[in-house]
Amino acid sequence: MSDLAVSDVVARLRAELGDLVDTADAALDEARADKSGHGAAGTPLAVVHAASVADVQAVLRIASETGTPVVTQGARTGLAGGANAGPGEIALSVRGMTRILEVRPDDLLAVVEPGILNAELNAALAEHGVWWAPDPASRAISTVGGNIATGAGGLLCAKYGVVRDAVLGLDVVLADGRLLHLGHRSVKGVTGLDLTSLFIGSEGTLGVIVGATLKLRRLIPGAVCTIAATFPDVRTAAEASAAVTASGAQPSIMELMDAASLAAVHALLHLDPPTPGAAQLTIQTDGPAAAAEADAIATTLADAGGVVALSHDPAEGDRLLAIRRAMHPAMESLGRALIEDVSVPRSALPAMFDEIARVERAYDIVIPTVAHAGDGNLHPNFIFDGIEVPQIIWDAADDLFRAALRLGGTLTGEHGIGVLKQRWLADELGDDQWQLQRDIARVFDPAGILNPGKVFAP
Amino acid sequence: MSDLAVSDVVARLRAELGDLVDTADAALDEARADKSGHGAAGTPLAVVHAASVADVQAVLRIASETGTPVVTQGARTGLAGGANAGPGEIALSVRGMTRILEVRPDDLLAVVEPGILNAELNAALAEHGVWWAPDPASRAISTVGGNIATGAGGLLCAKYGVVRDAVLGLDVVLADGRLLHLGHRSVKGVTGLDLTSLFIGSEGTLGVIVGATLKLRRLIPGAVCTIAATFPDVRTAAEASAAVTASGAQPSIMELMDAASLAAVHALLHLDPPTPGAAQLTIQTDGPAAAAEADAIATTLADAGGVVALSHDPAEGDRLLAIRRAMHPAMESLGRALIEDVSVPRSALPAMFDEIARVERAYDIVIPTVAHAGDGNLHPNFIFDGIEVPQIIWDAADDLFRAALRLGGTLTGEHGIGVLKQRWLADELGDDQWQLQRDIARVFDPAGILNPGKVFAP
Repeated sequence: MSDLAVSDVVARLRAELGDLVDTADAALDEARADKSGHGAAGTPLAVVHAASVADVQAVLRIASETGTPVVTQGARTGLAGGANAGPGEIALSVRGMTRILEVRPDDLLAVVEPGILNAELNAALAEHGVWWAPDPASRAISTVGGNIATGAGGLLCAKYGVVRDAVLGLDVVLADGRLLHLGHRSVKGVTGLDLTSLFIGSEGTLGVIVGATLKLRRLIPGAVCTIAATFPDVRTAAEASAAVTASGAQPSIMELMDAASLAAVHALLHLDPPTPGAAQLTIQTDGPAAAAEADAIATTLADAGGVVALSHDPAEGDRLLAIRRAMHPAMESLGRALIEDVSVPRSALPAMFDEIARVERAYDIVIPTVAHAGDGNLHPNFIFDGIEVPQIIWDAADDLFRAALRLGGTLTGEHGIGVLKQRWLADELGDDQWQLQRDIARVFDPAGILNPGKVFAP
Repeated sequence: MSDLAVSDVVARLRAELGDLVDTADAALDEARADKSGHGAAGTPLAVVHAASVADVQAVLRIASETGTPVVTQGARTGLAGGANAGPGEIALSVRGMTRILEVRPDDLLAVVEPGILNAELNAALAEHGVWWAPDPASRAISTVGGNIATGAGGLLCAKYGVVRDAVLGLDVVLADGRLLHLGHRSVKGVTGLDLTSLFIGSEGTLGVIVGATLKLRRLIPGAVCTIAATFPDVRTAAEASAAVTASGAQPSIMELMDAASLAAVHALLHLDPPTPGAAQLTIQTDGPAAAAEADAIATTLADAGGVVALSHDPAEGDRLLAIRRAMHPAMESLGRALIEDVSVPRSALPAMFDEIARVERAYDIVIPTVAHAGDGNLHPNFIFDGIEVPQIIWDAADDLFRAALRLGGTLTGEHGIGVLKQRWLADELGDDQWQLQRDIARVFDPAGILNPGKVFAP
C-alpha cells in the first residue's frame, strides 16, 4: 500500500469514527502483540476502539472498499499470535464493547457484547444464580469474544464443557460490513448449517463477533472438595489422573503440574520449595455428591502411589488452585515462554509425558508442563532468552507436536493456530481439508482482508 | 438426463459395485420416502447398499463424473423428507454399515459406522458402562449417522445435550469421492475451522458421513425417579414445566402431552381414556440427587396446580415413558400426520401453547402436541386425510412457524429442513445468511450433486 493510500484509509476512518481512531505510538505498538510474546514486524495503521456494532460495520465497509486488512482484537491475551496487528492493517478493538444486554436465568441464557471480561461477566451472572462455564486460566483478563474466537477451554472443561458447548448464537459483521444473526435463543435448533459453531475458534478469519447469546448453567449448590496429591514423578501422576478418569469419577477440575512448574510457581509465590522431582495433581469435586466423589478419588490416588490431602475448606481450595493459576506469570519470570497446547486422548496422557521427557533429553532443555489432566490437554512451556523463538526451540516443539499427533492428539486444544502453529496445520488436517477450510473462509471473505496471514497463511 | 445416460450410470454402478446395486421395484419405491409421509414424485435410478467406505467413494466418483445426484439414506426415519430420493437420483444407503469399530471407556469415546441404530449402539455400549446421550424418540429405529446428519435431539437433551454436544469427529466422503477425517479423538481441539459441527445437521448436502467418533458418558448410577403430573389444561402444564426449569431443578426428562395426544395414545395402547381436557407432564430425575430433586419438583408441580404421582419403581417409569414414546404411532393411527418441530426459549412455552390454541381455532383443526418441555421443543401434529398435505394445513403450519419465530424460537429444533420446511428457511435465516450457507455448501459440492432440492432449494 502506498503512503498516500495509507493516509487515505486513516483519513476515512477518522472522518467516520472520529476519536475512536487511535494512532498514538503507544497504542500502535501495543496492538502488535498478544500474550504469546510474539509480535508483528511493525505497527498497524491505526487502532479503532469500536463502541458499537455500527462502528464495527463502518470499519469493515472502509476496509472492504480500500482493500485494507482488519485484525480484530479483544484484550490481546491470546497465546498463538492470532490477534497481532502489523503494517498495513487496521487493529479493530472490540474491548470497549462490554455491555451485558440481557440475562435470563429462566431460559439459562445471556446476551453480551464481545469485549466483556470472562470474570466480569461471571461476577455479574452470579447475582442471578447462573454462570458461563468456559473457564480459561486467563479468565480474569480475557474477553468473552476472544474466548469464542479462539474456542477457549479451561480448567472446568472435562465436566462442564468448552466454549463450543456454551454458545447458542452469535451476531457477526462480515467483511463487507453486513450484520448477520447466527444460531438461536432456544436450546435446540437445526435450521440450516451450524454457522455459530463454525465461528467458534475461527480466530477472526470469517467475520467480527459483535454479540453472543450464551448458554448458561445454574450455580452448583453445595461446597467444593479439594484434593492435592503428590507423586514421586510426573508419569506416576499422569497415570493416577488417567486412573481417576477411568474410574468413572467426574471431578470438576483435575490439574497436573510437573516438578519444574511447581518449582517455578513456588518461587514466584515465595512458598517453600516443593520436593525435588515431585509432581502434583490438584482436583476438585462439586455438586451433591462432592464429598463421596472426593473420598473415592482420594482412594484411587493413594492406590496409584500418591500422598493425598483432602480439604473441605473453600479457602484452602482457592489457595491450592491459585498455585495452578500462577503458572503463566511463573513462566514469564523464567524468561520468554513459548506456551504450547497439545491435547491427547486421556489414556495417552502418561505416554505424552514420556514424549516430553524424551524431547527434553534430545534437545537438552527443560519443558515445564501443566496439564488439564481431566481432558488430556497439556501446556508444555518452552523457555528461552531473547525476543525471537530460537530454532532449537522450534525443532523441539515440532518433535513434540508430531508426538501428540501420533498419540491420536491435536496441535492445539484451546489456544488456536494464530501465526505460531501455521506451519503444522496442514500436517494435522491433511492438504485436502486444509484447502477446503481455506475455501470456506474465502466464502466469508473473498478479498482476504480478515486477519490475513493467520491460521491459513501458506 | 436421457434414458441412455441413466442406463449408463446404472451400468457403471453395477460394474464397480455388483450386487450392491439394487433396482428392484420395491427397493426403488421404498427409497422415495421417509417417515414424514412425504415422498418424492417418482423413483430413483438405483439404491446402492454400501458396505464399506470404499463403496461410498466409488458411488460418489461415478456420480461426480456423470453429474448424477446422490441422496444419502440411513433408516429413512427422518421427518422432513430430507432423505427422500427421486427420479434421476442415486439413493446411497449406508444402513448396512453397522460396525462398532472401537469402544474406549477410559477415553469416553467410540468409533462407529453410520448405519448402526442408536438403540443397538447403546445396548452394546452399556456392557462397557457407557452410553451415547442423544436420545431421539425414534432411537429404536433411527441410525447414528442419520441422527448426526439431522442434528437430532430427543428426550434427554435438556440435561445431557444434543448430537452437536456428543460428536468428536467425523469421517466424510466428499462429492468427488475423497475421504476426509474431521475433528479429534481428544476432548479439546481447535485446529482450524470446526467442520465436524458444520456437518452435524447438514442433511446430506456437504458430504456422506461414513464414520463417527462419538463422545460418550458414563452410565448414571443409581435409580431413576419418575413423576407424572396431571393439569386441568395444557397452558397450566406448560407454566408448571417452565416453573420447574426456573426453579433450578434439572430433570433428565420432562415431557408434556396435551389432551388430544393423551387421548390418541391411550386409545392406541388400550388404556382407560384420560380426563377430558387434561394435560400431563412426565418427568424423570437421575443421578445421586434423584430422590431429593424429584421431591422438590413434585412440590413445584403441586404448587402450580398439578395432581402429582411420584414413583421410585423403574418399571412404572418405563410404563409412563412408553406412553410418550407411543406418540408417533398414535398419530399415524389418526390419519396422515405432518409432525412439526418448533422450538422456543423455555419461558415462552406457555405462550407457544396459546399460539397453537389460536391456530386451532382459526383453522378449525385439532393439533395434538407433545413437547420436550425441558428444552422448549414442541411437536405439533397436523392430521389430515389423503396423501398430499392440504393447503389449509400448510397455511396453519405457516401461521404456527411465524408465531414461533416471533417468540424468539426456530422452525426446527431437531428434525431439520429437508423438503418440507424449505419455504420458511430464508424467513428464519434472512436472505444474506441463506445465500452464505448455500455458498458454503457449494464449496463442498460445486456441481450440486449432493441431495439437491433439499434444504437450500429455491
